[in-house]
Amino acid sequence: MTNPVLNDPTRRAALAALGGGAGLAAASSALGPNAHAQSAPTTPAASVPAAPTRQGGGFYHHRIGDISVTQIVDGARTIPLADGFVRNASRDQINAALGQAYMPANSMTLVYNPMVVTTAGKRVLIDTGNGPDPKGAVGQLLPNMMAAGIDPNTIDIVLLTHFHGDHVNGVLKADGSLAFPNAEILVPSAEWAFWMDDGNLSRAPEGGVKQTFVNVRRVFKGLDRRITRYEMDKEVAAGLTPFATFGHTPGHASLSLQSGNARLLIQADVTNHPALFVRNPGWHAGFDMDGPKAEETRRRLYDRAVADKVLIAGFHYPFPSLGYAEKDGDGYRVVPVAWNPVL
Amino acid sequence: MTNPVLNDPTRRAALAALGGGAGLAAASSALGPNAHAQSAPTTPAASVPAAPTRQGGGFYHHRIGDISVTQIVDGARTIPLADGFVRNASRDQINAALGQAYMPANSMTLVYNPMVVTTAGKRVLIDTGNGPDPKGAVGQLLPNMMAAGIDPNTIDIVLLTHFHGDHVNGVLKADGSLAFPNAEILVPSAEWAFWMDDGNLSRAPEGGVKQTFVNVRRVFKGLDRRITRYEMDKEVAAGLTPFATFGHTPGHASLSLQSGNARLLIQADVTNHPALFVRNPGWHAGFDMDGPKAEETRRRLYDRAVADKVLIAGFHYPFPSLGYAEKDGDGYRVVPVAWNPVL
Repeated sequence: MTNPVLNDPTRRAALAALGGGAGLAAASSALGPNAHAQSAPTTPAASVPAAPTRQGGGFYHHRIGDISVTQIVDGARTIPLADGFVRNASRDQINAALGQAYMPANSMTLVYNPMVVTTAGKRVLIDTGNGPDPKGAVGQLLPNMMAAGIDPNTIDIVLLTHFHGDHVNGVLKADGSLAFPNAEILVPSAEWAFWMDDGNLSRAPEGGVKQTFVNVRRVFKGLDRRITRYEMDKEVAAGLTPFATFGHTPGHASLSLQSGNARLLIQADVTNHPALFVRNPGWHAGFDMDGPKAEETRRRLYDRAVADKVLIAGFHYPFPSLGYAEKDGDGYRVVPVAWNPVL
Repeated sequence: MTNPVLNDPTRRAALAALGGGAGLAAASSALGPNAHAQSAPTTPAASVPAAPTRQGGGFYHHRIGDISVTQIVDGARTIPLADGFVRNASRDQINAALGQAYMPANSMTLVYNPMVVTTAGKRVLIDTGNGPDPKGAVGQLLPNMMAAGIDPNTIDIVLLTHFHGDHVNGVLKADGSLAFPNAEILVPSAEWAFWMDDGNLSRAPEGGVKQTFVNVRRVFKGLDRRITRYEMDKEVAAGLTPFATFGHTPGHASLSLQSGNARLLIQADVTNHPALFVRNPGWHAGFDMDGPKAEETRRRLYDRAVADKVLIAGFHYPFPSLGYAEKDGDGYRVVPVAWNPVL
């Protein structure tokens, strides 16, 4: 039935391009839109269209050399744009940046993208998302992981880049049990040292930072024997090496994934949404605990990423959370990777 | 178990931003990465990781005002870069454009994205993809449509923008039966007039264009009573109006979808892959039957899209095949829409 040449529009077009088609163009100009409509079939459609109940996507498989990688979306939250969301930019400046990215003004949609790296037979989950959410806007990691064909029981390592709740809360299920029961939990030693220090807790101001101390201790309570503190610049799995990108939090890690000449830069939270913080690396997000240090880290990392033309995975980039950075004025922009529908 | 304030990192960060955190930054600088690793659990993972067998995505739901829209990927083909792929650009120029888009040199990955518009209770499929492909690289429309919760039997209208095989071949299944058995098939009257004219067929040069004549007649054979020819600038379903974008083919249609103030410009094949033909609107693809006319159409449409900041759906844009156009030098660039993981 199918003729491989006839049914391959590319080959046909290539043939057309080679064979020429000037005569057809001339012929077509002599034809007008003058055909008459025929009667249509009257068979009704089988049922009334139903509204969609779930979004597509959820996971995106790709490869870095020999290493299989899966980006998995945990969901999104849309919040009103609060004062202090960016410490050193006005509401008007933020709205202008949102407009340039074709995003609505006066609100911010934050997205969350954990990922799984399968290397040398080991499955590493990098960050765990927001954990259980009764509303379902976030906490989609587990169902999306299962849709991707990845059984949570096969995760060997849960690697956390830092201790904000949207990265660590997915360690636990709603009933407090482990979401990845067979996994060792790797944490940056500098991050652990900071958040587990009672003196730091006692000096923390009331509000979000103090609540993060409380949350970190809640999540990790009783997990000491599962937790391994990792050092920067030491490989944690074949081809996967964390490195220090302090500033967003005191012990924040990014990772380099390398296989042969192929490389992925896993930036974690060096920037939040690229429309704001890649475009304006000098903006200090309320999320960045040390704004100036986070900015210095950000500019250094992005200058290098631009020079290397390296693929970047950003936890807060829009799904599938992969792109390339380019210099753009004083800042940068992310060119999202082209979706490959074929494995 | 879950504390809505504690578990909302955004609120915590906003509080942190408001409450200040300078003391914490100072405290963190006194801490070094000096923790010792603890012993890890020795429980093995439940099974050996399996390679992924299918890509995620496949469909993407969004809304234009009150109208539900679903982009559905039909797959991708990667072909060697043949001479004539672009009539008026050299291989070096094409490779440079591919490099600027972080795509590999000397080959071209073409993607195909039909879509479903559900408006006023009518389901309209716009273009049908490549149809059955034993290799599975394309012909994914039907399984992806079903994954999106859209039963092919509920399609009321199959609207074709033009008659190239990657748009019409999906009308039929492998056994020659109708893929959308309850649908009326709408075709542009100018396109029908051109390809059904025996004089045009007799004047067609050997190669791709002649093969397209043969293929069009194969696909539509015996379907006369299902086929309705549509005129430009006349609404075909609530909010959905085709308009002439001749050049790519003699009767090529694009569509405007409007609901309230929301609008989607469905460009069909005014450009093929944006990395080449949005970026370089003066390039004449081998696919474009009348290169100069296609270029004129392309520049006119994109100038208007840039001025209107209108969302564009491109059949050959990377999935989910939605983006905004911006002027960039003599050409344009597409800023892909940010993936929304929440319905």
